[in-house]
Amino acid sequence: MPTKRVTILGAKGAMGVFFQSWLSRNGHDVTGIDKEDWSQAESLVAHSDLVLVAVPIAVTCEVIRQIAPLLDGTTVLADITSVKQEPVATMLSCYAGPVVGLHPMFGPTSTSVRNQVLINCGGRQPDQLEWLFDLWRYREGTVLESTPTEHDHMMATIQAARHFSTFAFGCHLHNEDVDLNRTLAFTSPIYRLELGMVGRLFAQQPELYAEIIYRSDEGKQILRRYHEFFGKLLQELEDDNRSKFIERFNDTRSWFGPLAGEFLDESSLMLNAATLARNSPRKLIDAVDQVTE
Amino acid sequence: MPTKRVTILGAKGAMGVFFQSWLSRNGHDVTGIDKEDWSQAESLVAHSDLVLVAVPIAVTCEVIRQIAPLLDGTTVLADITSVKQEPVATMLSCYAGPVVGLHPMFGPTSTSVRNQVLINCGGRQPDQLEWLFDLWRYREGTVLESTPTEHDHMMATIQAARHFSTFAFGCHLHNEDVDLNRTLAFTSPIYRLELGMVGRLFAQQPELYAEIIYRSDEGKQILRRYHEFFGKLLQELEDDNRSKFIERFNDTRSWFGPLAGEFLDESSLMLNAATLARNSPRKLIDAVDQVTE
Repeated sequence: MPTKRVTILGAKGAMGVFFQSWLSRNGHDVTGIDKEDWSQAESLVAHSDLVLVAVPIAVTCEVIRQIAPLLDGTTVLADITSVKQEPVATMLSCYAGPVVGLHPMFGPTSTSVRNQVLINCGGRQPDQLEWLFDLWRYREGTVLESTPTEHDHMMATIQAARHFSTFAFGCHLHNEDVDLNRTLAFTSPIYRLELGMVGRLFAQQPELYAEIIYRSDEGKQILRRYHEFFGKLLQELEDDNRSKFIERFNDTRSWFGPLAGEFLDESSLMLNAATLARNSPRKLIDAVDQVTE
Repeated sequence: MPTKRVTILGAKGAMGVFFQSWLSRNGHDVTGIDKEDWSQAESLVAHSDLVLVAVPIAVTCEVIRQIAPLLDGTTVLADITSVKQEPVATMLSCYAGPVVGLHPMFGPTSTSVRNQVLINCGGRQPDQLEWLFDLWRYREGTVLESTPTEHDHMMATIQAARHFSTFAFGCHLHNEDVDLNRTLAFTSPIYRLELGMVGRLFAQQPELYAEIIYRSDEGKQILRRYHEFFGKLLQELEDDNRSKFIERFNDTRSWFGPLAGEFLDESSLMLNAATLARNSPRKLIDAVDQVTE
């Protein structure tokens, strides 16, 4: 594969670091620039095959507007922000060359693209980025085709609404001043895993979560409906309406279909791994390393 | 260790099967009886060192009241129900001999007690069950001392409120008619793991969850407070109050303390294991089996 010249804007951000490292290791000629090197942007981007915008969501569209006039019309302009409608529309309106909206569906703690999903929301002449998609698949990752509209709808469900619920549950535990260490002594493996999912959110950057949650108008609508629905179910609980609980449970089980059983099998395996993670983390790390190498 | 004579009431239930198998494998003389063998109860329980009540929560106190008059005053009467105040109070009032309220904090899919927690809520002369606790620890499980009151408070938080929230989220996905398979194509590892935690609930018995959730008055109060608090946070979201979000996020992070970072490390390892579980389940099963043997 010919070497591509890639410029990453926001190279010091976590995902910028990931892409710079991954593309370099795969033989491409990558230059990362960040805020303090901005003056070099013009000379660099003019000779790039790909300019990858990896800056924080809040400044993505502004950076796109600044960079687009510097490109020569053959360079691919792409972004990796976790919302897609607005950045892709901005790229299409500011630039006449190839445009691709991307969203890598994993965090910067991953070290390879193996088994990882990259969403390709297209834009204009997305085939100009086929070399990157081919590399992604060659390294055993998955490239999923979507559109900015479908992507943002999915993210409202998968990210905005889900992260907000997790945030709310963590704040609630704080609000109730639950004795976490004592609950952990009582813990079932599933509770520890669920609490771990809550705790890990708070070990990360609030600004990132604020962006994902506050940017999604559709997420807010979903959450408003969820809150109302939760209130209805809670009323049924307070009314001691067990038969309604069982009816809803069975309806939802049917709606999940074969996935419910698959999730049970998969998560039972995960729970065994979780118990191991808690008691012998070194052994699990070694076991996972051994089979992921 | 001398062989103990154990009678399990509710021997065909999942946890009854577990205890019958585990105690037998460890050299004890175990007889299981279930509804259809009830007529044999009198002759069996009179000669037991331990009568273990493992029937569904809904009939636990009724079974205790029936069985207590048949015991000779040296037999230990114990139950393994997931609520403790009412069953322990019932055992204490119906029987003058040794009484122990137990709660094994794991499901019947576990095959050993290794790394598993058994809650001992005491009752009267709980030292008469020391042989079982010793065996539990010898097999590398943990025995945690508690009281019925503390236990039920912890379960309201860990089980009733948490399971109801999971139930509500699953019903909400159904209500919104989310295209689960399509969301899974988009999935981040953490979303799949979280959705797996939701799906696995619906693959299990609704009656068990109804019992855990509907029995806990404290759980209902916690859920009512959670619903109100969620509404407050949602209002802040709709008011676009990002600084409040970040303030709450940081406060809750501080409240989690070092646990947030520990959960992040632990769950990052779990996410790698989850990705592996999805793509090469056989390899993970082998890896986990190898180190858990």
